[in-house]
Amino acid sequence: MESSSNEFRPLDHKYIVEYIKATPALRSQLGYNLDDLKIREVGDGNLNFVFIVATPSASLVIKQALPYVRSMGESWSMSKERSYFEAEALREQGLYYYDRTMSVIGMRYLEPPHIVLRKGLISGIEYPLLAEHMSEFMARTLFFSSLLHLTTTQHRSSVAKFCGNVEMCRLTEQVIFSDPYRESQHSYWTSPYLDSDAQAVREDNILKLEVAELKSRFCERAQALIHGDLHTGSVMVTRDSTQVIDPEFSFYGPMGFDIGAFIGNLFLAYFAQDGHANHGNDRKLYKEWILRTIVEIWTLFDKKFTALWDDSNNSSGEAYLPEIYNNAELQLLVKRKYIKDLLHDTLGFAAAKMIRRIVGVAHVEDFESITDTATRAKCERQALDVAKMIMKERRRFEAITGAVSAIQEFHK
Amino acid sequence: MESSSNEFRPLDHKYIVEYIKATPALRSQLGYNLDDLKIREVGDGNLNFVFIVATPSASLVIKQALPYVRSMGESWSMSKERSYFEAEALREQGLYYYDRTMSVIGMRYLEPPHIVLRKGLISGIEYPLLAEHMSEFMARTLFFSSLLHLTTTQHRSSVAKFCGNVEMCRLTEQVIFSDPYRESQHSYWTSPYLDSDAQAVREDNILKLEVAELKSRFCERAQALIHGDLHTGSVMVTRDSTQVIDPEFSFYGPMGFDIGAFIGNLFLAYFAQDGHANHGNDRKLYKEWILRTIVEIWTLFDKKFTALWDDSNNSSGEAYLPEIYNNAELQLLVKRKYIKDLLHDTLGFAAAKMIRRIVGVAHVEDFESITDTATRAKCERQALDVAKMIMKERRRFEAITGAVSAIQEFHK
Repeated sequence: MESSSNEFRPLDHKYIVEYIKATPALRSQLGYNLDDLKIREVGDGNLNFVFIVATPSASLVIKQALPYVRSMGESWSMSKERSYFEAEALREQGLYYYDRTMSVIGMRYLEPPHIVLRKGLISGIEYPLLAEHMSEFMARTLFFSSLLHLTTTQHRSSVAKFCGNVEMCRLTEQVIFSDPYRESQHSYWTSPYLDSDAQAVREDNILKLEVAELKSRFCERAQALIHGDLHTGSVMVTRDSTQVIDPEFSFYGPMGFDIGAFIGNLFLAYFAQDGHANHGNDRKLYKEWILRTIVEIWTLFDKKFTALWDDSNNSSGEAYLPEIYNNAELQLLVKRKYIKDLLHDTLGFAAAKMIRRIVGVAHVEDFESITDTATRAKCERQALDVAKMIMKERRRFEAITGAVSAIQEFHK
Repeated sequence: MESSSNEFRPLDHKYIVEYIKATPALRSQLGYNLDDLKIREVGDGNLNFVFIVATPSASLVIKQALPYVRSMGESWSMSKERSYFEAEALREQGLYYYDRTMSVIGMRYLEPPHIVLRKGLISGIEYPLLAEHMSEFMARTLFFSSLLHLTTTQHRSSVAKFCGNVEMCRLTEQVIFSDPYRESQHSYWTSPYLDSDAQAVREDNILKLEVAELKSRFCERAQALIHGDLHTGSVMVTRDSTQVIDPEFSFYGPMGFDIGAFIGNLFLAYFAQDGHANHGNDRKLYKEWILRTIVEIWTLFDKKFTALWDDSNNSSGEAYLPEIYNNAELQLLVKRKYIKDLLHDTLGFAAAKMIRRIVGVAHVEDFESITDTATRAKCERQALDVAKMIMKERRRFEAITGAVSAIQEFHK
């Protein structure tokens, strides 16, 4: 499955055909008859080339990491080694092929009607299985890579490996935990409406105190192997299917960063709905569905995660040895504490992700697609104000429902 | 300076002479005339051989890690690679020579009147510069290896390297965070006096909840390159000199683990004093000196650590970028929060270190040298009760003085 070219060369529509023909693992996936090859470049992200390659009978995706940030140009360099960590994280889910020198990954093409979840949320589509699937994904990936399941030896060896993905961590640190809180040439916002809001973020001492704690947790706490970029643009959906993509930011970090990324982006979708409302659809019911889904994601995550923990009494996890945590009352006590701490982390990171999408460098289509600037600014301001409140007051919430109620209250 | 033998072989009084003669770096350190070589094995620790090697004009220490825990016998295996991490940590202080295959380190011999601090504390000797020196050592080693000083890239690369010292971390996890809280064949205590106290520790749900949090911090938080075993037996002293030795447990962990180890062991020395009192010396003044020294260590640490932080505005530290933390009020706010969190960690780890020395596997000479068993048990019980209180209530202390006062009050 793994191979390596002699040197790096960016793919293009012509070279990719040669590349596929010279690579048995890709040729066999496509069924050998390559006469009628259809190739489409669809990378709409900030970083990579993404090609959908199809024959009449088969298809795959070829993703290539470039040695710079695609959306910022070649001057913002970025190790293409991120594709190594993406391939490592993908091993269990649809990885066909990996070429380290070319930073090329061959993987499953998620055929139509799969769309990016963010686009579905903008269109107002309900996904009845989203909470079930995402809570399952997060509970399993986070639990099984943590010290609840792993021995110290397994954990430290995995931590050491993913320390190599440092450039992606640096990028996250900069765009999420730094740029929104300082003057930065890359940051922008819906001007002039949000000029003073952006300035207020840069002058908010209490907010900066909180973001420092979250940043330190991001940089120092190797709690689990996290996806690292789990927003609604990293999930492909149909009504029945939910597929997480793009784990190139993966490293050992705090669990709350993944859950917070996802929930924070659902909150952004929620606040953008007023900008997508029209006479035919006021989006009121849809907004309620989003909030219900957030509550359901957390509640199901809690349930699934603690069920895995309950079942782990014979596992080798170092954190809570059964000989020590040996009575029902204590087991409940440690689980409730763990989940509550995780909720506070989750809310903090959710807020950080929201803030950076409004006054930082990379915005979200949820808001960007609202064409009336004043309306967009109004939606963004609501989201920003709520995010600031949540970041500062997250520790007072005992349950997700309290946080969601506070947001509804705040939003009135 | 570095060399490597072909295979591992334990040193003994005969083989060490051959070894030195065959090793130019050691011969040159000893001055080449090896006719009158005096060799003394002085390893009183749990893990290694330690030889003092001297000619009439020169001396050095040769330390060899064995592939098992010396005090427990060959059945408790333990990677001798710990000497690699010790050598790495020693590079800046008195390392002459390192042989990875033999796990042999050649280093400076700390000549008389240097003694192990623990022995000095048992003898009731005051060290007027101890607080000054130890606070300086801890402030510098912890600050300069943290994200207050390092870039993310430097930090993660160092974290990855020291992940290799996992066996030492495992040992610490077991003896400090696990064994005292479960039935363990290795644990012992002053029986029968403390039988019910040891049982109470094993049945204390709240204590176990707290120790889980401390263990998770130990395992997951890569805050700084810590010594990892900074008790009073890892410090050699004279009235004017303070030398930290034995960094073989070093890895990226929470700063409070080092400061807590040292302060916790000073508290043990404090509670042992009543067992060393006699008609000529009631040790009352000495006990006061120990408490004063603990307060002074923390106060000076705080001062030196924040001074390094104040001076770091031009450094590359990732954690608190000057463009964000850009006003005096905010700078004060983040420093006070950092130091307060660190105090709480320090108190928690101090308590964990105290508990494990009373009801765990490796005890301290402070208590073991009290020959009257009932007296020893009384001293140990006081220390144990205080440690339990501190671990549970550490978050209510705003300053070290509050904690010390609470301990004096408790002790009355």
